[in-house]
Amino acid sequence: MIYTDFDKEDSLALHTDLYEINMMYSYFKKGIADRNAVFEAFYRTEPFGNGFAIYAGLERVIRYLEKLKFKESDLEYLKETQNYDDDFIEYLRNLELKLSIRSMREGELVFANEPLMQVEGPLAQCQLVETFILNVINFQTLLATKAARIKLAVDGDALMEFGSRRAQEADAAIWGARASYIGGFDSTSNVRAGKLFGIPISGTHAHSLVEAFGSEYEAFKAYAETHRDCVFLVDTYDTVRSGVPNAIKVANEMGDKINFLGVRIDSGDMAYISKQVRKELDDAGYPDAKIFASNDLDETTITNLKMQGAKIDVWGIGTKFITAYDQPALGAVYKLVSMEDDNGQMHDTLKISSNAIKVSTPGKKQVWRISANTAKKNEGDWIARSDEDPRKYQALFMFHPQYTYINKVVTDYTAIPLLQDIFIDGKLVYNEPSLNEIRDFAAENLDGLWDEYKRSLNPQEYPVDLSQDLYESKMNLIQDIRRKIRERGISQ
Amino acid sequence: MIYTDFDKEDSLALHTDLYEINMMYSYFKKGIADRNAVFEAFYRTEPFGNGFAIYAGLERVIRYLEKLKFKESDLEYLKETQNYDDDFIEYLRNLELKLSIRSMREGELVFANEPLMQVEGPLAQCQLVETFILNVINFQTLLATKAARIKLAVDGDALMEFGSRRAQEADAAIWGARASYIGGFDSTSNVRAGKLFGIPISGTHAHSLVEAFGSEYEAFKAYAETHRDCVFLVDTYDTVRSGVPNAIKVANEMGDKINFLGVRIDSGDMAYISKQVRKELDDAGYPDAKIFASNDLDETTITNLKMQGAKIDVWGIGTKFITAYDQPALGAVYKLVSMEDDNGQMHDTLKISSNAIKVSTPGKKQVWRISANTAKKNEGDWIARSDEDPRKYQALFMFHPQYTYINKVVTDYTAIPLLQDIFIDGKLVYNEPSLNEIRDFAAENLDGLWDEYKRSLNPQEYPVDLSQDLYESKMNLIQDIRRKIRERGISQ
Repeated sequence: MIYTDFDKEDSLALHTDLYEINMMYSYFKKGIADRNAVFEAFYRTEPFGNGFAIYAGLERVIRYLEKLKFKESDLEYLKETQNYDDDFIEYLRNLELKLSIRSMREGELVFANEPLMQVEGPLAQCQLVETFILNVINFQTLLATKAARIKLAVDGDALMEFGSRRAQEADAAIWGARASYIGGFDSTSNVRAGKLFGIPISGTHAHSLVEAFGSEYEAFKAYAETHRDCVFLVDTYDTVRSGVPNAIKVANEMGDKINFLGVRIDSGDMAYISKQVRKELDDAGYPDAKIFASNDLDETTITNLKMQGAKIDVWGIGTKFITAYDQPALGAVYKLVSMEDDNGQMHDTLKISSNAIKVSTPGKKQVWRISANTAKKNEGDWIARSDEDPRKYQALFMFHPQYTYINKVVTDYTAIPLLQDIFIDGKLVYNEPSLNEIRDFAAENLDGLWDEYKRSLNPQEYPVDLSQDLYESKMNLIQDIRRKIRERGISQ
Repeated sequence: MIYTDFDKEDSLALHTDLYEINMMYSYFKKGIADRNAVFEAFYRTEPFGNGFAIYAGLERVIRYLEKLKFKESDLEYLKETQNYDDDFIEYLRNLELKLSIRSMREGELVFANEPLMQVEGPLAQCQLVETFILNVINFQTLLATKAARIKLAVDGDALMEFGSRRAQEADAAIWGARASYIGGFDSTSNVRAGKLFGIPISGTHAHSLVEAFGSEYEAFKAYAETHRDCVFLVDTYDTVRSGVPNAIKVANEMGDKINFLGVRIDSGDMAYISKQVRKELDDAGYPDAKIFASNDLDETTITNLKMQGAKIDVWGIGTKFITAYDQPALGAVYKLVSMEDDNGQMHDTLKISSNAIKVSTPGKKQVWRISANTAKKNEGDWIARSDEDPRKYQALFMFHPQYTYINKVVTDYTAIPLLQDIFIDGKLVYNEPSLNEIRDFAAENLDGLWDEYKRSLNPQEYPVDLSQDLYESKMNLIQDIRRKIRERGISQ
């Protein structure tokens, strides 16, 4: 089939892996499609060797879930390509989501092995939404985290997101821009992202302006005569000998008619050139003109440039941010943790694996952030069964889930539950914050974190502990399954 | 402004960097917005240390250009946030693309510094479309190339694309799936990509099926009773001791009622385990059952597993492919190469840079593929001014554009122009091939390439040479600009 109106026939209902629908079919045919199930999404190690991640992607998931509905062309495609019975197609046609979803808030500090999103409801429905949820949460959380790393490196300087042309397709450009803003960037160059999300937009001109007008002087002059705020790009021919002198000449000629904000350099050795440019601007009487830099920058290069005393005021970050260049995938997974049995009882479920790190933690959970009342900083996170409440204890025993001999007793603490109700039985109950509120929330969360967890290289490991109950039930279930495999006597 | 219907108010007209629109404004106000300009998109080094790239992204760019139109909400957003005069907003409102676009065909073999797409027409229009074109071409070409590398590594085995959940947002998942198919993959797991592009889809079940049914036996049995084609995932608990024996048991019980295609392993040491599993399947009388493997595979791991004699028949590739993990950005740029002056004459333009590799090649060009008539393999590519035709020469002098002493004279050759007309003055003139034609074209192109360029590690450098004319005009223009900078007497 060829779609004459590509956009119109497109829908996100099929934005899922085929095996999800094949499993739905088995559940449906076996009569267990509507049994209650609980899935949780989590990742296994912090990205970039960082000490934390910043959660993002929830808003996009909410929009997706609100609109999830199979189009007739979706159903026809499935009929054409798969051998499903008509009753299943009819079931899909009438599908209405009844999921209950709990999630971290966007901008939340999150850590490896914590449930980021919990999806509860009819088994088949939980299965359908897995792929899209992971697709979105993986990318947006990765990028908000990368943004926070870069934000920490610039140490208060302004940050512009420039990555659209190197982004991994169009969605990555706009949702990456949104994630950059959550993580602390100040603006994006992508106008569509500005319009859709209300992010401040910025950008002046490219080398092509200079080439189109034939000379730097004419180009800068033309720009200045048509725009009030001016940042001139000065490296089309020779930054120090031609670009900056021409920028100064135009700034002198235009005087009060423009805001001469500064100049941008996009090539050459940023440390050396920025110092030369600073001197030229100062000598010409423009000590307030800023130096904007861009050219494959990331948190490591920024830190090194700062160590060498580079005179850069504003950082434009493109490729290395928008693709999360040094680790382009977060690797979050989505695992069944609890399942209704034939008698209507919920049971914990577990996946064992020969890769030790791939063994999941069973049971429906809540994540609690434990902060000491004296220091006002976080002591660590404590993952418990959803019906356990640490606020009723006088003291909390916290221990490392692998190295259990690393432990401590915390008293005089505040415990805050992190997973929030988003949908209950398919109904949106979450009061969505604005993007600026999310950004402020991320900044506040970082304030609550000790510096040792914020170091970009080799940070301390933040404590993410299991409750005693959860730990024991995990160990018991592992033993249980291993025993069953042995007892069945199945072997080579 | 908050958009009540997010999707409806969205448009790709604003999927551009703000500086493009700011430059359009200067061009418009200075009366040069409609002057003829030529821009070319190219990248500077082969990705992944590969010896070639496979071009992709054209179809998406065509759809974008066909529909490009500012919505009223786009114009309102610009009025709200920028200081443009009303006449410019009116100009945007009435904008109709008059661009002439030449491009490589999707599936074409392309190399560093070759124009991949050439955009000619009104200067301001050329500027507007830069960001989207690069966004799309960069990603899709990168992924088609990655796919071709993996295809070469599997040496004829079947390849499934599995990456949606780790893709960098939703567009990357579906367009990445399309690029995988162009590069030689056989199927994708993404159902939406299957529907939109006609790619074969594949996928059976996840670990959650096993957990939902409570045991491998029951899960496999349920799957087999509801699906004819069965691939059982055997590593939920213990691949060799539990997973494969249960798969065999169900296959035995179901007999002819199913196609027992094989088993999938997703963890553990693939070389060791696949040999054990092969033996179990053979011993049970299933020598034709295939072993499917997935788990962070890429071309390097595949090559190593094959060296160790791993018994894997079908490869499922996710994260490492869909994010182009080892190099997640191609870095193609878009440069003005020719511009109309005040007198209506076209002039070559150039950007110099302190980074030698960032010096562009001026002038409107064509790329010719030169193949020897005897060997039927490519001798190299020859970039010339668009009005030069190597078919009228008896012999072609080819030389390396940096190391000019590396050169050769080619006789008895065929020269094929690679850039094709796509749009002429805004009208689509290109007869778009089907995706299967594109995929076949890519495979044929790879057949025409000597093996030394196809090695995944340290391949030979494929000759991409400039015509004598083009080389000389580049050198002259560089000298010209340097002299002007000196003569103007601008210095520190």
